[in-house]
Amino acid sequence: MGEFDLIARYFTRPTTRAVLGVGDDCALLQPAAGMQMAISCDMLVEGRHFFADVDPFTLGHKALAVNLSDLAACGAQPVAFTLALALPRADEAWLAAFSRGLFALADAHGCELVGGDTTQGPLNICITVFGEVPRGQALLRSGARDGDEVYVSGTLGEARLALEALRGSVALPHGRLAAARMRLEQPTPRVALGLALRGIATAAIDVSDGLLGDLGHILEASGTGARIDTSVAINLLADGADTTRAEGHFSHETRLRCVLAGGDDYELAFTAPVSARAAVQAAALQAQTAVTRIGVIEHPPGLRLVDASGHAVPGRYASFDHFA
Amino acid sequence: MGEFDLIARYFTRPTTRAVLGVGDDCALLQPAAGMQMAISCDMLVEGRHFFADVDPFTLGHKALAVNLSDLAACGAQPVAFTLALALPRADEAWLAAFSRGLFALADAHGCELVGGDTTQGPLNICITVFGEVPRGQALLRSGARDGDEVYVSGTLGEARLALEALRGSVALPHGRLAAARMRLEQPTPRVALGLALRGIATAAIDVSDGLLGDLGHILEASGTGARIDTSVAINLLADGADTTRAEGHFSHETRLRCVLAGGDDYELAFTAPVSARAAVQAAALQAQTAVTRIGVIEHPPGLRLVDASGHAVPGRYASFDHFA
Repeated sequence: MGEFDLIARYFTRPTTRAVLGVGDDCALLQPAAGMQMAISCDMLVEGRHFFADVDPFTLGHKALAVNLSDLAACGAQPVAFTLALALPRADEAWLAAFSRGLFALADAHGCELVGGDTTQGPLNICITVFGEVPRGQALLRSGARDGDEVYVSGTLGEARLALEALRGSVALPHGRLAAARMRLEQPTPRVALGLALRGIATAAIDVSDGLLGDLGHILEASGTGARIDTSVAINLLADGADTTRAEGHFSHETRLRCVLAGGDDYELAFTAPVSARAAVQAAALQAQTAVTRIGVIEHPPGLRLVDASGHAVPGRYASFDHFA
Repeated sequence: MGEFDLIARYFTRPTTRAVLGVGDDCALLQPAAGMQMAISCDMLVEGRHFFADVDPFTLGHKALAVNLSDLAACGAQPVAFTLALALPRADEAWLAAFSRGLFALADAHGCELVGGDTTQGPLNICITVFGEVPRGQALLRSGARDGDEVYVSGTLGEARLALEALRGSVALPHGRLAAARMRLEQPTPRVALGLALRGIATAAIDVSDGLLGDLGHILEASGTGARIDTSVAINLLADGADTTRAEGHFSHETRLRCVLAGGDDYELAFTAPVSARAAVQAAALQAQTAVTRIGVIEHPPGLRLVDASGHAVPGRYASFDHFA
C-alpha cells in the first residue's frame, strides 16, 4: 500500500462544513461571519505520551481528544483538524483501528479531517485543530481576578493512577484499573462545558500537565495567586481510598499527588466571580459535566494549598515538563 | 532548560496580525471579511526528509518553506503557522539556529508563529500553516482543461542533484554542488507567483515529490491528460550538462530523471489557457520568477513524454512515495 492509497483508504472522507478537504495542496475553511478561528496543536510521541502496545483505536481517540480539550478551554466550537502521521510502516490493521477511533470522536463533535501529511518515521501523531468562537468571547488564561472562585470539571488523577498501576507502583482492583485506564486512554474533552462557560468563566485552561501546574499558568497570565482547599480537591479522585485500601498501596499522599499533579486529565480548570455561582452550575447542568469549587483567586501571586481549617498543607507537587 | 523556558526563549514573539499568539490553550485568528482560510500541514522526519547533521538554520527555513509552498500553490497569502517539535534533548545552540532560520523566512512572508507544541522524542518537525485567499479564488488541482498549457516555475532537479551528489552517486564541481545544495536545503517557496496567478492559472500544485507525479495529481483531479516536451523540460535543470561533463557522472538520463522525478523542488506546476499566455508572463514578471511552458493538457488521461519532434520518449520516472 503506497502513501496515496493509505490516505485515500483511511483518511479521506467527504467534508460537509469545509469548503475543501483532503486532496489538494491546502484545505479551505470559510469561518462564519463574526467568528474568530481558535487553533491548537498537539504532538504525541510513542514511549512519551503512550505505550508502544496501546490499542490503536484508543490512540486515535486520544490524539484528537487532547486537541479538542484545548478548544474546550477556549470555549470554541470544533470545526476541523489536520493530521500529520509518521509511521514506521503502513500496518493496515493498525491504521484501520486508529482511524476508527479518530473518526468516532471527530464525528461526535462534528469536527472534520481536512488535510495532513503521512510519512515514514518513528511513530508520531501531530494534530492541529480548528474551532470557531464569536469575536471577543474566547476564554483566556489571563482573565482571573482576585475574589474569583476556582473550579475544576469532572474528576482528577484517574489517568495518573492508571499509569502508576500499569507501571506497578500502585496496586488496583481489576475493575478500578479498567475505569482509570479508560480515563488515561480515552479522555473526554469538555467541549460542551467550555461552550457553556462562555460569558461566565473569567479564565480557563485544560488540565493536561497536572492541576497545580496548569492552574499556575492561569495565575501567571492573570498576575495573581490562589488558595486551594486540598480537603475538597482530594475528592476529585473518585472512589479512591476506600475501594483500594485493601490493596495497601494507595496512600492519601498518592491520592493527593494524583489529583494535584497527575496530568493527562483533560478536565477544565476555570475561574468565575462569586456572583456567577448559579450560572456556573447552570452551565455544568447544561453540559452534563460536574464541576467542583476548590478554591479562590487572591493575592499575592503563587499557589497556596490549605486544609479544611485553612492551615497550610506542605508538599511540592511538580507538574509535567518534557525537558525538566 | 525546561519546556516552558524553551518555548519562551526560542518560540515566543509578539504577534501583529493574530488576535492571540503563543501562550494560551489556543491561538486566535480573525480572517478578513470575504476571505477563506487555506490550511496546509507538513511533517519532516530526521533521516527521511533531512540528514541528521543538517545545519539547523537551513532546517528551520526548510520546515516552513515546504508549507509556504503549499499556500503558494493555492494562491494564498501567508498569515500564521503553528510549530510542533519533538526533540531528543533541549540543545540550545541547535534551537537558536533553528529558530533563526525559521523566523528569517517567516518574517520575509509576514507569517507569524501563533502556537504549537514541544515534546521529547525522535527529531520531528510538524508545521501547520494558515493563509488567506478571497472566496472562490483559490488555485485548485482540479481546474485543468483540455487545451490549457502546462508551466513550471524556476528550475527543477537541483535538489535531487544535490542529494545524489551528497550520496556520492553523482560527482559535481564544488561551486555547482553548493548551488544545488542551497536548493535542497533552503528552497524558495513561490508565494509571490502563486498570488500573481490568481484568476489566471486554471490549476496549480507545488512540485514536492517530482514533476511527473505531482502533475499527475492535477491530471487525476481534473480528469484529463497531458503531453510534456522533454526537450524543453530538460533545460529546467540549469547549467547542468556542460559544467559537469568533465566529472563524467552526470548523464543526460540522470539530468532528465532529476527534472522529471527529482522531488524537493518546491516550484509551482500550473496550467493556463493559451489566451492567458501574456497574463502568465506578466504574473511571472510581477513575481520576479521565471516560468517555462513545457506541454499541453489533452485527452486521453495519462502523461505522455515527447521529444522535440513529438515522438514518444520511453522511460518510467517514478515520483517519491513514503511507503512504496
